[in-house]
Amino acid sequence: MTTMKDVARRAGVSVGTVSRYINQAPGLKEKTISAVKQAIADLNYIPDEYAKGLKTNNTQTVVLLVPTVWHPFFSEFAYYVEQYLSAKNYKMILCNSDHDPQKEQLYVQMVIQNKIDGIIGITYNDLGKYTTGDIPFVSIDRYFDEDTSYISSDNYDGGRQAAQAMIAKGSKYLMYFGDKSIFANDTMRRRDGFRAEITHQKLPYDEIYDENPLLNLDERLHQKLVANPQIDGIFCVTDAMARKVITALKKQGIEVPAQIQVVGYDGSKAYREDPQAMLSTIVQPVAEMAEAAVKVILDKIENKNDKKIAIHLPVKFHPGTTTR
Amino acid sequence: MTTMKDVARRAGVSVGTVSRYINQAPGLKEKTISAVKQAIADLNYIPDEYAKGLKTNNTQTVVLLVPTVWHPFFSEFAYYVEQYLSAKNYKMILCNSDHDPQKEQLYVQMVIQNKIDGIIGITYNDLGKYTTGDIPFVSIDRYFDEDTSYISSDNYDGGRQAAQAMIAKGSKYLMYFGDKSIFANDTMRRRDGFRAEITHQKLPYDEIYDENPLLNLDERLHQKLVANPQIDGIFCVTDAMARKVITALKKQGIEVPAQIQVVGYDGSKAYREDPQAMLSTIVQPVAEMAEAAVKVILDKIENKNDKKIAIHLPVKFHPGTTTR
Repeated sequence: MTTMKDVARRAGVSVGTVSRYINQAPGLKEKTISAVKQAIADLNYIPDEYAKGLKTNNTQTVVLLVPTVWHPFFSEFAYYVEQYLSAKNYKMILCNSDHDPQKEQLYVQMVIQNKIDGIIGITYNDLGKYTTGDIPFVSIDRYFDEDTSYISSDNYDGGRQAAQAMIAKGSKYLMYFGDKSIFANDTMRRRDGFRAEITHQKLPYDEIYDENPLLNLDERLHQKLVANPQIDGIFCVTDAMARKVITALKKQGIEVPAQIQVVGYDGSKAYREDPQAMLSTIVQPVAEMAEAAVKVILDKIENKNDKKIAIHLPVKFHPGTTTR
Repeated sequence: MTTMKDVARRAGVSVGTVSRYINQAPGLKEKTISAVKQAIADLNYIPDEYAKGLKTNNTQTVVLLVPTVWHPFFSEFAYYVEQYLSAKNYKMILCNSDHDPQKEQLYVQMVIQNKIDGIIGITYNDLGKYTTGDIPFVSIDRYFDEDTSYISSDNYDGGRQAAQAMIAKGSKYLMYFGDKSIFANDTMRRRDGFRAEITHQKLPYDEIYDENPLLNLDERLHQKLVANPQIDGIFCVTDAMARKVITALKKQGIEVPAQIQVVGYDGSKAYREDPQAMLSTIVQPVAEMAEAAVKVILDKIENKNDKKIAIHLPVKFHPGTTTR
């Protein structure tokens, strides 16, 4: 195998110079650069990235933490994050937390030991304990504290748009269907925007807004609709929740969208384009969110930018067959 | 930060002994082990896994190569592979090849430079060029050559079960709907088993069996059904294909399953449990496949087992609402 020494000999420079070239250290002469470049090409030399990582303390590796890559929104997001990272020669380590704070903690501990460069996290657990370290971190859909950078879609406006869409098509009594998180979570703002728009339009509002996870969905929905039969539009915190609600409504003999309109949130390709679902939903710009997350994390890693960055990307209502 | 030297001093041993303990080298006395263990606990010392990797040439990292993690089967598989790997303190680097041989090649090149320990690959490209190296490799659903280990579901039996299920419910003229790969691919055996069962039962057989990817699905299906209106059962190479076929049939005013039964292959949770789809399908044992893949790759990495291993795991027909 070709070594750095072989490259140095062929280029007529020292091993230190080859190392500086490989680590993109400044101050090398144009002539030296081209000699080393040529020697590397001639000898088909592959720099040992691992040894390089040890020296520069950079492993070109970012961890993506998701609750579970099973979920269509997370798998779509993971796809794009990997795309943008690999375009910058970074690798992505994927971790499923399974909504288990302990697993997440152990996992993050493990990867930090391996000198990863940064973490992009979709998490509904309290990640504060990891982010207090000096590992660059970007949160998705969560604000933790004043110092944590995060990226989310414009959840508040999404809620507003959901209300507007159903009201425009005749709904007069809207309900929100979601779950709470014990930690501050930007997805709660979906409800806030939804409720604000309804209040603004002076219409009545109701909600099922439970602790996470929501149990007995069918039963809870049934009770609510018996108690309040005027409800004619439901906005659900996610598409997955919307699909469950639609199924429960159908079981109860309620027609969607004729009797009750339903709007979800996420707009994952899997649900949006599924010919058998065609859910009306608020579409998150998942590719743009991934691109922004990668841009912010690489800026923190490579330029040591420690400013807090908060980005809300615009969303759009997608009419499917569950609204009129 | 606590160093190995601090641990050595506290334990009253040499740095080399601490290193041997961390690298689980044999030959240490029970007393030495417990002293080092205690010192590590007292000082809250975190071994630098990265430096360790450089020494032992093991990074506790496995790459999972999938065409795209978007696809429900692949995301489910990725989920389980990560579960089984992290249980063994291995990390999973995820790579989406996008069915692009060049991207795949560049990516594999990049990770090999980083001294990853092994690759689990779901790929429909010719990976031979990587597997000729000495990186442990396990293929999913693909056999490349005599030397490559692979794991797949029992595709042949799955095809047989699909035929049996539709024939049992009255289908008399069955068709296969799939695509070809220019490389040997175990998924082709789905067709082989399907056709063999139909031939065995002395029934007629038809197929749409195209180059990958299949274009103009609607038009091709329409032409086929006009030319051959007796077709009353279709087995599709994947669930995703089955969903497209069902949508095309509905557009043409054909009732599923009353006029034509449809069976898919994969049985991803997303499609199988989706209340709005309820696809009849052949279920791959995805968790067991992931477990087997991790077991085989770790055996190759840790025990240098270079024997070829071929595992076919059993499948099961899942009746949904697209068969009678």
